[in-house]
Amino acid sequence: MELWFSEYQTKNVKLSFRIKEVLYTKQSSYQKIAVYETEDFGRILTLDDTIMLTTKDEYIYHEMISHVPMLTHGDASRVLVIGGGDGGTVRELLKHPVKEIHLVEIDKEVIETSKKYFPTISCGLSDPRVKIYFEDGIEFVKKNTGYDVVIVDSTDPIGPAVGLFSAEFYKNVFEALNEDGILVAQTESPILFDNLVKKIYKDMSSVFPYTNMYSAVIPTYPGALWTFTMGSKTINPLLKEVSSLPHIDTKFYRRELQKSYFILPPFVSNLISDRGV
Amino acid sequence: MELWFSEYQTKNVKLSFRIKEVLYTKQSSYQKIAVYETEDFGRILTLDDTIMLTTKDEYIYHEMISHVPMLTHGDASRVLVIGGGDGGTVRELLKHPVKEIHLVEIDKEVIETSKKYFPTISCGLSDPRVKIYFEDGIEFVKKNTGYDVVIVDSTDPIGPAVGLFSAEFYKNVFEALNEDGILVAQTESPILFDNLVKKIYKDMSSVFPYTNMYSAVIPTYPGALWTFTMGSKTINPLLKEVSSLPHIDTKFYRRELQKSYFILPPFVSNLISDRGV
Repeated sequence: MELWFSEYQTKNVKLSFRIKEVLYTKQSSYQKIAVYETEDFGRILTLDDTIMLTTKDEYIYHEMISHVPMLTHGDASRVLVIGGGDGGTVRELLKHPVKEIHLVEIDKEVIETSKKYFPTISCGLSDPRVKIYFEDGIEFVKKNTGYDVVIVDSTDPIGPAVGLFSAEFYKNVFEALNEDGILVAQTESPILFDNLVKKIYKDMSSVFPYTNMYSAVIPTYPGALWTFTMGSKTINPLLKEVSSLPHIDTKFYRRELQKSYFILPPFVSNLISDRGV
Repeated sequence: MELWFSEYQTKNVKLSFRIKEVLYTKQSSYQKIAVYETEDFGRILTLDDTIMLTTKDEYIYHEMISHVPMLTHGDASRVLVIGGGDGGTVRELLKHPVKEIHLVEIDKEVIETSKKYFPTISCGLSDPRVKIYFEDGIEFVKKNTGYDVVIVDSTDPIGPAVGLFSAEFYKNVFEALNEDGILVAQTESPILFDNLVKKIYKDMSSVFPYTNMYSAVIPTYPGALWTFTMGSKTINPLLKEVSSLPHIDTKFYRRELQKSYFILPPFVSNLISDRGV
């Protein structure tokens, strides 16, 4: 018998993995959660049949969404993660001298699933510096403040995460941040979703004095070239000196490239510049 | 009716595209050539059911395999391309002040197909500076010399291209190069083919005084994170100053990142360093 998991990356593009074993499937209150053991990408977590992570390449996404804003800030002690119930982002954040991490995950079942099936990813969730809230991140940022860095580690802008991709949400995050605070969000692929990338950049730019996009390759995400968009209140990430900051042990991120990451391929810069609107 | 083209990227990973129209299929003396019109990636060229290019993202591969070695050299006038019958690499090379480009493509049918179905990619093949040889590149480099840059724009190391991935071939290229000559080759994905990447780097390092790897995201190639390996006889690419060289119009490559491209993710540096052997 052949068992395959296929993700429709768009309605016209499909990525499929041969499955050794279906480890878990559950319909939670919010979404369908599944864990598969694949032949070539290790174990994978899907939400509504969309790949969240594979144990083969998850470090790329988690390192890039964490270390770029953390080193840009340089002295973050209180960090908020919205989404990210698998724990990968928290694991990376704990490599920095943070005092407190708040994780706001709407779906408790995601955290339970990760704790059970992804121990190398969820390992930081039980750290005493981490406090978990099972709430909607959109509401949470309206009521909580005092963060140095806010990371939006969300699903795609369909379903429960749609409100995390709006100028209104970015405004609320702006208010939730300390005066030198930084927001970063995963912001999809300019190869397949160019209009969405353009809109996100425009929305975030309308709120933050410094808005910078960077990219990384995420082999199992649609389009593979993935963007992250960072809004900063006072720190210009292109001028921030990071060489004296402590070394962080990573597999993909390199501190030497901290500023280079913001130098985008011309087709992406053109997309988000006025020329691209 | 639903029509899909699927590539088995490994025997356990499959990438599929919905097809609008099958434009061309032919069994040449060397391989099965096909051209499909897809919904989301434009027109695609496959050889033996492996994607060579899509009109959506081909510029990334062609720019990165051309401009990085050309700017490292800085004054290349005679360039050899092995493979590359689609013409994309030649198109990029013609953005530099070259005097002569030799293209050695074993399969005449690839060139004919590209001329007919990919006019924006094959456009440089009729330039008077370009001379096309329908020969085996492995034999060609044993008999021809005087090149400033040699680019191995080959298929994967199975079938006719296997001899292009060997220390013996790299030695012959070394001899075919001028004294400050540079070789670059497309060298597969460290995500899916780590042992192959390691072997190629080791083989090229055994021949060239300077061997440097760089990477780029190729969304439609297996693993998406793709490497290129560059061997240089006398020029150290990490010290080469490129800022005074003429601007090249590109969509992915950025001259400001010329040296950063060689700073690899730690998992790739570790793979090719002695620690990784």
